[in-house]
Amino acid sequence: MADKQLTKPPSGTRDFLPDEIRRREYVIDVIRRVYESYGFEPLETPAFENIDTLLGKYGEEGNKLIFKILKRGEHEKSGEADLALRYDLTVPLARVVAQYQNELPKFFKRYQIQPVWRADRPAKGRFREFHQCDIDSLGSTDALVEAELLSAVCDVLARLGFQDFIVRLNHRGLLTALLETSGIAATQHGDALVALDKLDKIGRDGVEREFSARGIPSDAVAKALTFFAGESVESDRALERLTGIVGRHESLENLDAIVKLLATTDAGKRIRVDPSLARGLSYYTGAIMEVAVPDLAGSLGGGGRYDNLIGMFLGRDVPACGFSLGLERLIVVMTERKMFPAEVAGGAVDIMVTIWNDERRADAVRLAQELRQGGLRVDVYPEADKLGKQFKYASSRNVRFVAIVGDDERSRGEVAVKDMRSGDQKSLPRAEAAAFVALTLNREP
Amino acid sequence: MADKQLTKPPSGTRDFLPDEIRRREYVIDVIRRVYESYGFEPLETPAFENIDTLLGKYGEEGNKLIFKILKRGEHEKSGEADLALRYDLTVPLARVVAQYQNELPKFFKRYQIQPVWRADRPAKGRFREFHQCDIDSLGSTDALVEAELLSAVCDVLARLGFQDFIVRLNHRGLLTALLETSGIAATQHGDALVALDKLDKIGRDGVEREFSARGIPSDAVAKALTFFAGESVESDRALERLTGIVGRHESLENLDAIVKLLATTDAGKRIRVDPSLARGLSYYTGAIMEVAVPDLAGSLGGGGRYDNLIGMFLGRDVPACGFSLGLERLIVVMTERKMFPAEVAGGAVDIMVTIWNDERRADAVRLAQELRQGGLRVDVYPEADKLGKQFKYASSRNVRFVAIVGDDERSRGEVAVKDMRSGDQKSLPRAEAAAFVALTLNREP
Repeated sequence: MADKQLTKPPSGTRDFLPDEIRRREYVIDVIRRVYESYGFEPLETPAFENIDTLLGKYGEEGNKLIFKILKRGEHEKSGEADLALRYDLTVPLARVVAQYQNELPKFFKRYQIQPVWRADRPAKGRFREFHQCDIDSLGSTDALVEAELLSAVCDVLARLGFQDFIVRLNHRGLLTALLETSGIAATQHGDALVALDKLDKIGRDGVEREFSARGIPSDAVAKALTFFAGESVESDRALERLTGIVGRHESLENLDAIVKLLATTDAGKRIRVDPSLARGLSYYTGAIMEVAVPDLAGSLGGGGRYDNLIGMFLGRDVPACGFSLGLERLIVVMTERKMFPAEVAGGAVDIMVTIWNDERRADAVRLAQELRQGGLRVDVYPEADKLGKQFKYASSRNVRFVAIVGDDERSRGEVAVKDMRSGDQKSLPRAEAAAFVALTLNREP
Repeated sequence: MADKQLTKPPSGTRDFLPDEIRRREYVIDVIRRVYESYGFEPLETPAFENIDTLLGKYGEEGNKLIFKILKRGEHEKSGEADLALRYDLTVPLARVVAQYQNELPKFFKRYQIQPVWRADRPAKGRFREFHQCDIDSLGSTDALVEAELLSAVCDVLARLGFQDFIVRLNHRGLLTALLETSGIAATQHGDALVALDKLDKIGRDGVEREFSARGIPSDAVAKALTFFAGESVESDRALERLTGIVGRHESLENLDAIVKLLATTDAGKRIRVDPSLARGLSYYTGAIMEVAVPDLAGSLGGGGRYDNLIGMFLGRDVPACGFSLGLERLIVVMTERKMFPAEVAGGAVDIMVTIWNDERRADAVRLAQELRQGGLRVDVYPEADKLGKQFKYASSRNVRFVAIVGDDERSRGEVAVKDMRSGDQKSLPRAEAAAFVALTLNREP
């Protein structure tokens, strides 16, 4: 019966055991608190949508990757699907905006942290079930929206303990202007951006080869590569240089406004105007942004303005700017860098109450309750058993303290608290035990 | 385009707007903290399982209610399903126990709060997507397991603010013994329990009619009804009376042990040994329990011991005792009784920073950051607009305070804070504004 093949989670999905959930919940909790401090409100939508809501929204390729749910009952035999699993959090947001247009505020700022499902071929770091973690600010085209969004994202990363991240900032309109100025035809802008987006990976030579393979003139390539060179200089100087290339331009004014709005905030020093940032999604219409840390290929998250998408079910455009944090990547990097606090990285239990003998079980239950009232996470060994075996169990579970009430302790109204790390044991009045453990664990009682 | 029919969530599912999520998250947060203080650890499993993992586990009726996912790619045309949405949290737990048997502790105590999906006909209070909220304690048959489980559940309800709940406690073995003593044949026990379970709804007469319709002798009915009479007396006296009926019995010893283990704890005064509690599920093997509040038909949650189920994929029995809280019911009752704290019931934003004019937008962004550092949830009006319009927006969003930095305030390094509820306005040094608002909101700064 116990065939491991049969009890594995489905291909591309994962069971989350306690340690992993504690890490994820810690990160989500920080994200949630910061986003709420910026006035973003939580939204959740059902795991599945009517199939017509999703089909055709993610292109040919996307349609194939959508998990479709079979009709039920007598219709099951038809082999037809009427529902489909959530593929991203943007289309459901667009549906919600249309459905509750009279209830939602004019400027709707929502965050949404939920799993999505895509029938991609599973690979290292690519899953069929994963969490997306989106914020979107709807209803205004003002650069203040981009500024607040970036400030919130920077706050999240700072609170999580990242010290070396930067925000790359660019603008869809600037990309177009730079390509035009390079002498690349509008019909080739898409191809050119795809190639430029790979600059980090394939280098100048690689980009040149891709350009010429697509028939883009070689002098245009040279110009583009100069114009698009990623910069680590101050944003002000970058904007100056770019104005020198394309002249006064709406996109540069927008970027300038975002930079100025953030100038005196914590986020200000993180921003780098970077004309080489392309971002794949074609639906962006304005500023685009991405968060990166030096030793990590790829980004920790990205976003931008997309004014023509959220209104898809509403029948009129709704200004929108969004950012999506890569929850899985954050957790991977934070785990590698050991950025989780001790209470997240450590075990689930602060102290385990042992059972002295069968008659004392009720007292153990009572002691556990006293310790919990002192703010501790307390387990009780469930059976009368040899004390050595109980200690061994506590150790195996990474429990730092065990409590023992032997005959002596009992007669004195005390409890012996044993530190499993140091081996030290100390008898204390019962009322003082919780505070002693909390203090040793460096936690507020 | 904006056809409300097309933008509704699928039948039986719900979109959760911010107020509803805040309520649910508040309840889940209390549950999680309490369960963790008892040493329960979080577990999460994928939204879908391989279809063979679920089929046949929930009976004929259950098979029909499972949402099945169509194969993908070239196999889609076959109309066959290979995956199915999670139907409960018990079968996935059984799979996890088999898969990770060498990694999980001997006594595995887990909680799991995740949605499940059932293709039931939608009705008032019955949804196709809803959250289950389970704790299960595996590995020991000791009554201490039941005691700790009940203590945890009572702590959750007390922390949520319930003052009038009771825990009905019974035992599967006692039910059988009482039916036998009544003179009801073993083959009719199932029918008899179904009828007795309806005592609250259909009364004595109704139960008598159901019994005779099933051919159970009338003297057995009379006996059973006397034996099973629900009691609100002290558990000790109930146990004494029941011993008088069935004699010394394993089930009574078990109930006695649970009651004694909890005698001096907060949960102790909640327990009522109640022989009329049947609970529908046939898989229980020992103690069964249910939490009820006086003015609510049905329960807030229930559970019991089921020693023969968790081992289904493992090939050997695993002792198990579990409890499931009805998250939706908790929220409904707490909303009706106005049990949510002000910060959950109130709006999402403590203070909104207004925009004095276009040139002052950067200062507004900066002020918002200062107020956030003081622990507030702060929104910034995103555009320069008439002040009256900005105030109106704040009111419409139920924001308690607005901040204004006019020319006078600016020259003095101050900020005007307007209480939208009272209409009072007060000028304060910028550094003191956050503390003033936090104090008025009665919140820790």
